[in-house]
Amino acid sequence: MFPDSLIAGYKSFLGDRFSRERQRYESLATTGQSPEVLVIGCCDSRVSPEVIFDAGPGELFVVRNVANIVPPYEVGGQFHGTSAALEFAVEALKVKHIVIMGHASCGGIRSFAEKRAPLSSGDFIGKWMSIIAPALDTLEDPGETPSDDYVTRLGLAAVEQSLANLMTFGSVRRRVDAGELQLHGAYFGIASGHLLVRDPKTRRFEAVVSDIGTPPSLLRCD
Amino acid sequence: MFPDSLIAGYKSFLGDRFSRERQRYESLATTGQSPEVLVIGCCDSRVSPEVIFDAGPGELFVVRNVANIVPPYEVGGQFHGTSAALEFAVEALKVKHIVIMGHASCGGIRSFAEKRAPLSSGDFIGKWMSIIAPALDTLEDPGETPSDDYVTRLGLAAVEQSLANLMTFGSVRRRVDAGELQLHGAYFGIASGHLLVRDPKTRRFEAVVSDIGTPPSLLRCD
Amino acid sequence: MFPDSLIAGYKSFLGDRFSRERQRYESLATTGQSPEVLVIGCCDSRVSPEVIFDAGPGELFVVRNVANIVPPYEVGGQFHGTSAALEFAVEALKVKHIVIMGHASCGGIRSFAEKRAPLSSGDFIGKWMSIIAPALDTLEDPGETPSDDYVTRLGLAAVEQSLANLMTFGSVRRRVDAGELQLHGAYFGIASGHLLVRDPKTRRFEAVVSDIGTPPSLLRCD
Amino acid sequence: MFPDSLIAGYKSFLGDRFSRERQRYESLATTGQSPEVLVIGCCDSRVSPEVIFDAGPGELFVVRNVANIVPPYEVGGQFHGTSAALEFAVEALKVKHIVIMGHASCGGIRSFAEKRAPLSSGDFIGKWMSIIAPALDTLEDPGETPSDDYVTRLGLAAVEQSLANLMTFGSVRRRVDAGELQLHGAYFGIASGHLLVRDPKTRRFEAVVSDIGTPPSLLRCD
Repeated sequence: MFPDSLIAGYKSFLGDRFSRERQRYESLATTGQSPEVLVIGCCDSRVSPEVIFDAGPGELFVVRNVANIVPPYEVGGQFHGTSAALEFAVEALKVKHIVIMGHASCGGIRSFAEKRAPLSSGDFIGKWMSIIAPALDTLEDPGETPSDDYVTRLGLAAVEQSLANLMTFGSVRRRVDAGELQLHGAYFGIASGHLLVRDPKTRRFEAVVSDIGTPPSLLRCD
Repeated sequence: MFPDSLIAGYKSFLGDRFSRERQRYESLATTGQSPEVLVIGCCDSRVSPEVIFDAGPGELFVVRNVANIVPPYEVGGQFHGTSAALEFAVEALKVKHIVIMGHASCGGIRSFAEKRAPLSSGDFIGKWMSIIAPALDTLEDPGETPSDDYVTRLGLAAVEQSLANLMTFGSVRRRVDAGELQLHGAYFGIASGHLLVRDPKTRRFEAVVSDIGTPPSLLRCD
Repeated sequence: MFPDSLIAGYKSFLGDRFSRERQRYESLATTGQSPEVLVIGCCDSRVSPEVIFDAGPGELFVVRNVANIVPPYEVGGQFHGTSAALEFAVEALKVKHIVIMGHASCGGIRSFAEKRAPLSSGDFIGKWMSIIAPALDTLEDPGETPSDDYVTRLGLAAVEQSLANLMTFGSVRRRVDAGELQLHGAYFGIASGHLLVRDPKTRRFEAVVSDIGTPPSLLRCD
Repeated sequence: MFPDSLIAGYKSFLGDRFSRERQRYESLATTGQSPEVLVIGCCDSRVSPEVIFDAGPGELFVVRNVANIVPPYEVGGQFHGTSAALEFAVEALKVKHIVIMGHASCGGIRSFAEKRAPLSSGDFIGKWMSIIAPALDTLEDPGETPSDDYVTRLGLAAVEQSLANLMTFGSVRRRVDAGELQLHGAYFGIASGHLLVRDPKTRRFEAVVSDIGTPPSLLRCD
């Protein structure tokens, strides 16, 4: 049975947002989409990009994978879902912004920091998270038990890694050089609601809005 | 510069949903997530699962890739983002439902049907979409120019393909057999707002709500 | 038989440079090397970094591979000679500069541009050169027969690709961020003797010395 | 800023060697290179093959990796820089000699003998040096702390290993059998300036020139 909660939610959507935005959906179906922003976010159930950015239909092209990771350009590989979505967004849709959006309390980042045992014989999570292995080299040794601070900083370092990996795609580099595409890093603190945005000059993550209470430190934003 | 529209949207989220749901976000940050549903949806900017199912934080674990595809279980591969997310959702979060959610007017499906030229030298989209190649064999030959009907049916056949691919994962099969996990197919018509859900017995996709106007045909739901 | 030319050359080295620099060699053998510069150059017999930079013993740590390529950080691979040398230079020797040094008339670049048939069943050259495939996406389509200009621009784009790939190594990124390491691009025109150096702000390659005759254009430096 | 020392060195090269050898550089740019010798040397800043063999432009095709290693022919691998260079030198340039050139005080050899901890999370050096693991089996057990003698002998055994690995390439074997290609081992003592060359019959390394002072022993040539 299709989940009742989804049926109920869909009916609520029909009666509320869809009836209000119906013309926009109809128009988007006719003209096709032309979003200006690609968000690469996490699968986590608490960090929907459309919710956090209050985005309407047609605004965000959204990739969601575990821990919002971009792998480097890989030659010879087969099924690279994220690279495929990136290629489509950049080459076909010609988005103007790419946002790598990390978040606090990320299970993927934490399990990688804690070097947990594989979940299955395929160890897909272990292989996938290993894309951020080089980010470890930008941080000090966490010792036996990584602190919360360390896990947060690893999350930010992983965003940085994905930004570097983005630049290994020729199509991204060409458009960035031409001033047609901008790359951004962001980080959402689930508990506090803080959104941190990376300053491209200093490479620091700074809070967009501070009057909801100052985050204890930029490194402990949740 | 971080896009103004995202900053504005985030402030709207802070003042509206976040202030209303703040306790829920705080609680979810403390207890961690425990969503019951994994949705595998498309990156398309018009089909946000949280919007269409009016879902709150913590409800949906969401993978989004081009054309909402699940690859078959692959031995020896490296960076399988969707398989990693699937493994995490099934083994760590123990979700009870997986929804493969297709949609009308999917650019990935259409470009595959039309065998378009590669977008870049890497041809990541071409390689990625080739996962649904077996779905072609379930349909008649579309001739030179695939009709809209054909593209819609290919979209539905691709959902069917992904459902079969899900069953190539031992952990999925085991939990389905134990009655702990259900697999679903769904399809959203952007223009009409129709949601079609796959009947597991007949394998037909049927409209959940019909009083918004009957879809011209189940295969032309948009 | 060991080649006579090498024996003769060695004797010349012994009688000339070694006798003049003997103390330096002895001292370097005792203290170990501490070069400040890593050069990643091509195997080509016409572009010895020590000759072009008139460098003495202990000055340049030199990797030479076909077409002076740095692959992106790769997880799970086995025998990555260039990544190993990079790791050693950055982490153990703590070099302060990395120079990617391209050159005109590079056989590797040309064969890649011309999509030549594999040299052997292993096609090691083809696989190796495919690391620069994304650089193709930064240039226009060369048509059937790539022009000399195109091959030159591909050589410069390949240097740019390797600089992007360097930044996927966490240890490189950390030291660049800390101001302890600088990355450079350079290009040597064999016929004219011109050395072009990349301006990190404009990403253009400019001649270091121009009074040996102006290069016809920055893109035709040989 | 591009290193001043390199700019100064380049100007010295322009005024001295390049002005003397300009015709040779111009001619080599026109006709292309046709070196007869491939040298596989170490990245070490103290062992430039062009310096030690006083070689002019066009004479030596030079691969430089950590510890002058040739991996065995590998099926299915991706980015084998040294194999690619070897293939290019043998199949395209048809070199007549390959020289594996080891040297005293090699940091790669020593770190392998001492089983040092990884330099980074990728452990590229560890993986790379493991190519010479079989050479360990040709030597006695070094005990806890490998002696200098042991490290020297491991360096020579590693050259021997690389010579064996060269013969795993069909194209090398074919040309060696046809008398068109010769394989050589050499070893440079940095402090003393001694060059040892391997006698293919006895497999012993013997000094080319002895009147610069007898090396204390063939195994302690530095």
